Amino acid sequence: MDGDAGQIGTAVDILRQRFGDRLTTNDTIRDRHGTDESYHAPKAPDAVVFPQTREEVQEIVRICAGHRTPIIPFGVGTSLEGHIAALQGGVSIDLGQLNSVFRVNAADLDVTVEAGVTRKQLNKHLRDTGLFFPIDPGADATIGGMSATRASGTNAVRYGTMRENVLSLGVVLPDGKYIRTGKRARKSSAGYDLTRMFVGSEGTLGVITDITLRLYGIPEMISSAICTYPTVDDAVNTVILTIQSGVPIARIELIDEVQMQALNKFAGLGYAEWPTLFFEFHGTEAGVAEQIESVKTISDDFGGADFAWASKAEDRSKLWQARHDAHYANMQLRPGAKAWPTDVCVPISRLGECIAETRKDIEESGLLAPIVGHVGDGNFHVDMVLNPDDGDEVARAVALNERLVSRALSMDGTCTGEHGVGYGKIDKLVEEHGETAIDVMRGLKQSIDPLNLMNPGKIVRL
Amino acid sequence: MDGDAGQIGTAVDILRQRFGDRLTTNDTIRDRHGTDESYHAPKAPDAVVFPQTREEVQEIVRICAGHRTPIIPFGVGTSLEGHIAALQGGVSIDLGQLNSVFRVNAADLDVTVEAGVTRKQLNKHLRDTGLFFPIDPGADATIGGMSATRASGTNAVRYGTMRENVLSLGVVLPDGKYIRTGKRARKSSAGYDLTRMFVGSEGTLGVITDITLRLYGIPEMISSAICTYPTVDDAVNTVILTIQSGVPIARIELIDEVQMQALNKFAGLGYAEWPTLFFEFHGTEAGVAEQIESVKTISDDFGGADFAWASKAEDRSKLWQARHDAHYANMQLRPGAKAWPTDVCVPISRLGECIAETRKDIEESGLLAPIVGHVGDGNFHVDMVLNPDDGDEVARAVALNERLVSRALSMDGTCTGEHGVGYGKIDKLVEEHGETAIDVMRGLKQSIDPLNLMNPGKIVRL
Repeated sequence: MDGDAGQIGTAVDILRQRFGDRLTTNDTIRDRHGTDESYHAPKAPDAVVFPQTREEVQEIVRICAGHRTPIIPFGVGTSLEGHIAALQGGVSIDLGQLNSVFRVNAADLDVTVEAGVTRKQLNKHLRDTGLFFPIDPGADATIGGMSATRASGTNAVRYGTMRENVLSLGVVLPDGKYIRTGKRARKSSAGYDLTRMFVGSEGTLGVITDITLRLYGIPEMISSAICTYPTVDDAVNTVILTIQSGVPIARIELIDEVQMQALNKFAGLGYAEWPTLFFEFHGTEAGVAEQIESVKTISDDFGGADFAWASKAEDRSKLWQARHDAHYANMQLRPGAKAWPTDVCVPISRLGECIAETRKDIEESGLLAPIVGHVGDGNFHVDMVLNPDDGDEVARAVALNERLVSRALSMDGTCTGEHGVGYGKIDKLVEEHGETAIDVMRGLKQSIDPLNLMNPGKIVRL
Repeated sequence: MDGDAGQIGTAVDILRQRFGDRLTTNDTIRDRHGTDESYHAPKAPDAVVFPQTREEVQEIVRICAGHRTPIIPFGVGTSLEGHIAALQGGVSIDLGQLNSVFRVNAADLDVTVEAGVTRKQLNKHLRDTGLFFPIDPGADATIGGMSATRASGTNAVRYGTMRENVLSLGVVLPDGKYIRTGKRARKSSAGYDLTRMFVGSEGTLGVITDITLRLYGIPEMISSAICTYPTVDDAVNTVILTIQSGVPIARIELIDEVQMQALNKFAGLGYAEWPTLFFEFHGTEAGVAEQIESVKTISDDFGGADFAWASKAEDRSKLWQARHDAHYANMQLRPGAKAWPTDVCVPISRLGECIAETRKDIEESGLLAPIVGHVGDGNFHVDMVLNPDDGDEVARAVALNERLVSRALSMDGTCTGEHGVGYGKIDKLVEEHGETAIDVMRGLKQSIDPLNLMNPGKIVRL
């Protein structure tokens, strides 16, 4: 249900007067801003506005709030649970022009950026400092979007997720006021943890406009390798033992044989089409050698082939780019298909069982559904490649996802490791947390956004 | 101002009927439960009740809520900003009998404990598993209390604080309902981060009854050392360079010459009374050797004496026990004195300047005030040893703390690195975050605890 069309119209008129060409109601652009990379139905906003400063974001929010107009913050639109669909109409705030890297504090290993800076842009900016920012969801998402969805990616097993790597945030609240959630100290016990409250809030509590992030020194030594296994079970068991033995591995990614075929085809690669792990080791030269030795011993026990090394930076980038392209590669497997990635995360001790049962489900479902995963965290995705017009196929996909989420929850896992809730997983969230905890979340939302204007219809139903 | 005495009296009567001997109004016990280890004025609750199960906590909270009676959760009473003072009267819930370690999941490196389990009890329990829990505030605090204050300690530089190490919590809400804030998955994007909302909430949002924690494998190799420096500046510069060069040091603690004297006297030790760093290195044998070499090179550049090693487990415990006794050692420096520990934390690049200016302030104040710090995090404490009856001395201490907090904030630091807010730092919190952010905190508090019964008068003024 849309907000009051008259009120929204008035807000758009005022915004047009104020922002001129930087507000648009062009259909293509509106559609683009209501459509993410998910399977879920898109919904275009009434208008899109392109602010250039935090103060302009404040103005926009004040105008919208004054006319009860929903506000949907937009980064690059790569979310996967319908996060940016303008379910109740309103104005999409495209933060792409807030794209300055404000301040690299090399001595403190932190940086402050505007919300529209993308992760690749940031790492390019950091190139000459010897520092890097490790969090890497597949897409070249914005730091604002990554903060808003509590993103992670392949490096999280060693470096943590956005939860651990956002030091503080600047947020425009639903009434247009601006706050910073913290200082640059590495730790603090100064009151309620507002930083962590906004990380993962998916635009429902305010517009994140700037972010202070932790950075890391580029390791003295980086080695990447790939290794194939007789079965997915063997690959998963290699992961489980690696994690349990405390090896500080930087990346350990599972790609099943179906996913490997898709990657080869998409990127013109010649990898063997077996269950595969992609590894990366970070450390000093001696430290990396030690890690490799430990992992090789484990890997050998599970029938792993010899590691194929990617030691040159260029080969490493190619390898990881292939991994990050998985979702796009899968969509190319069938012309006109859409890919729907599931996203559960379970305790590592249950990972083997969870993946094995899920593979049985996939087989029985008859769906084309490669598996790929940040398995060091217990997180994996079944990327269901669907003909969206085939009702029966869609029904089987829905059923597969239902079973997968229920299984993960029964194993003390979560319905979403990194993609977030959007509107696609609102009911799953209730299943995971229970009504009482969801009520606490509702109270939180209502205390900060009493008019329910910030990205309404996401995370919790009010 | 106390709550309604009649209502509180009724609640206490009902609780007495229900809990018999496990409720007391004995003066000594009440005083003990309203008195923490801080300099701030204590205030006894009207009664203390000793539940044995989470369900009993729920009953107590329901009875109190039904009679508008303030509730103050109590661990072992080692807080440092007046956290447990019953400012408006009410009932102290002593969680000491909720002291079971529920479940060690060695394969997933996690454990679930009840709130009353202390950190030493937990590590004793884990003894035969090869695992340990690293967070160690000076006192043998409870895991519930440590979660509630977002505690850290000497290992935080490597292992993080309670923020990073609590996987999820069980909480009795102000209406008596119980929620778990999450599952055991290592990461999750499933909605607002309730776990982090309760970590650091100081009993103002609910009663934490059980906690799932991350554990770590005991490193293959642990080496501790102490080293003296010509000046505090030299010691601090050693720390700054160690952190900036990315050495994964487990502990790096500053003890100034005054603190060293106090420790020697208190524990009958014979350490040289110079500015000193306590180090600990965790890793594989080769990894630790590498770390030591890196740190020695830095240390030598700043005139560090040869490392004195504590390689035997027994010597190591003695060394770290001495460090943890610092606050108690200081109180023994003057008969009848109270010690008031400050607690700022600044970005590491500002640490040298912050400590140097603070030492000038201490000198000018004429106060006896050793410095000790978790300097790897940028966190240090000036432990002001006062005659509480000497108004002039107290005034100088207040002024010193004011200047210190303002200095830390001006350096983009925080007013409290690990002790929390209690009622001692309510105004400092406003100085740090600004009124708008404090309003967000107030809204959060009111949404969860609309009757303001949970530890009222702490963190924010309503």
